[in-house]
Amino acid sequence: MPLLRPALLACALCAAVAAPSFAEGQTRGVQQILADAPLSAWRDLDPERTLYMDLDAGRVVIELAPAFAPAHARNIATLARGHFWDGTSIYRVQDNFVAQFGDAEGEEPEKARDLGQAERKLPAEFERAAAGLVFDRLPDADGWAAEVGFADGFPAGRDPREGKAWLAHCYGMVGAGRNAEPDSSIGAELYAVIGQSPRQLDRNITLVGRVVKGIELLSSLPRGPEPMGFYEDPAQRTPIRSVRLASELPADERLHIQALRTDSAAFAELVEARRNRRDDFYKRPAGHIDLCNVMLPVRVVAN
Amino acid sequence: MPLLRPALLACALCAAVAAPSFAEGQTRGVQQILADAPLSAWRDLDPERTLYMDLDAGRVVIELAPAFAPAHARNIATLARGHFWDGTSIYRVQDNFVAQFGDAEGEEPEKARDLGQAERKLPAEFERAAAGLVFDRLPDADGWAAEVGFADGFPAGRDPREGKAWLAHCYGMVGAGRNAEPDSSIGAELYAVIGQSPRQLDRNITLVGRVVKGIELLSSLPRGPEPMGFYEDPAQRTPIRSVRLASELPADERLHIQALRTDSAAFAELVEARRNRRDDFYKRPAGHIDLCNVMLPVRVVAN
Repeated sequence: MPLLRPALLACALCAAVAAPSFAEGQTRGVQQILADAPLSAWRDLDPERTLYMDLDAGRVVIELAPAFAPAHARNIATLARGHFWDGTSIYRVQDNFVAQFGDAEGEEPEKARDLGQAERKLPAEFERAAAGLVFDRLPDADGWAAEVGFADGFPAGRDPREGKAWLAHCYGMVGAGRNAEPDSSIGAELYAVIGQSPRQLDRNITLVGRVVKGIELLSSLPRGPEPMGFYEDPAQRTPIRSVRLASELPADERLHIQALRTDSAAFAELVEARRNRRDDFYKRPAGHIDLCNVMLPVRVVAN
Repeated sequence: MPLLRPALLACALCAAVAAPSFAEGQTRGVQQILADAPLSAWRDLDPERTLYMDLDAGRVVIELAPAFAPAHARNIATLARGHFWDGTSIYRVQDNFVAQFGDAEGEEPEKARDLGQAERKLPAEFERAAAGLVFDRLPDADGWAAEVGFADGFPAGRDPREGKAWLAHCYGMVGAGRNAEPDSSIGAELYAVIGQSPRQLDRNITLVGRVVKGIELLSSLPRGPEPMGFYEDPAQRTPIRSVRLASELPADERLHIQALRTDSAAFAELVEARRNRRDDFYKRPAGHIDLCNVMLPVRVVAN
């Protein structure tokens, strides 16, 4: 099936704006770069840090970031093993911001779900020491952080002067809801970014991972009413059927998901192809790319 | 009704991430700034450059930008007067990118809708001379443009060396789909940004305006299949019942919409309140704001 519908070819925007993988001319397009990348350029997601959130509409896959939020990742794994989220819901969707989910009655003692073996108190994990963290730097300037790049496969900021690094609130990133107290999140209430990157939240809240597949199942949900997107009627919430660690499923039932390594030559080529687009559509290559505009390719390999 | 649901107060993220209007502490929140802004800080949208796109689910309101795309704005107005889009559709929704609409059969001569009085050829309007354009500069650094700010109420970039200015592809901005030829758009195929700002498109395509109300009606639509989000089955397209210039409606049937002036003290205060958030939730004010993170408040005034 051709990438473009001939009947729509001249409907415009289709040709290139539409096609992140469309490329003509001298440079190779995204699809070609990915197709040509060696096997070593891909890394398998670790089933011990991969969540499957099953909705009626399909599966959302989240990769956890224990390199940045080890306590939260552990607690989320504990909650998943305890089937905590089964029967909970996506109870809030705010346009150009987040979809948030968990136990909507979590604050009402008589109604709150049992946290099981999970910790009731965790440290805030807003940032970590930069030392010891492999950081694939993106050379492009960033208004929010001294340096940006990718660490453990996630978009991140770093300040060499402070010696700190932290995850960035790009599209699809998942964080742990909290109250005003920094250490008030336990990973039971989670949110995913579904709009313009709210980078002002970086270093202010614990990010725990990223949606690697199925983000559209969250981003296309009806928005709750303003100002914050909470559904007024519980019947409007989207039920979560289950959340499981991939490792809980028999190996032959898991999705074999791979992510392109951010230290690979293929990734660097892909970033450059997007930083300076040279297909026929673009008249002026930008010469810049923002951290949160960098695509992080993922593929599902047949078992 | 309180801004926060007591039962959800500790569900986290609610308190501040959730609430663009939530503020405690020494600074005034967005809602307070807006409530206190004088009448002179608000400008009425001009019905001659305001479009109402009516879907079954509700109305999308688009403000056109004739200061940047005069020929496209004129042609879009002509098409609207000719009721061109009545019965057309939103035929493509690509996650983290655009919702695109118009005549899905526009390239098939036997099926294409009659363009009526509209021009069949327009100049590309990717940018304009900076001279003569009132530009409310945002002092924050930007990776894509030498300078950023607001002109005619729209987010824009500017290069003083080149003497050029252009609209920026922030969330909700509306552009005119085209083919590979720069001057191949006529404003009949339009798209709205529904994800992370694709700023690489700035100066590469004609932006024509901005969704000021109802963007959620586009951003929450089901996504079409990859790679580009075109619906495979025409029955999946969202019908557009009508598109009208507000001026076509009797005055008492129009929405009286006002936008906060970007040269107002209230706007400057609002931008600073978001650049450095000082409510109890935020532990580290960012000290920076990106052009596309700046909210452009709009209100509907009772007639």
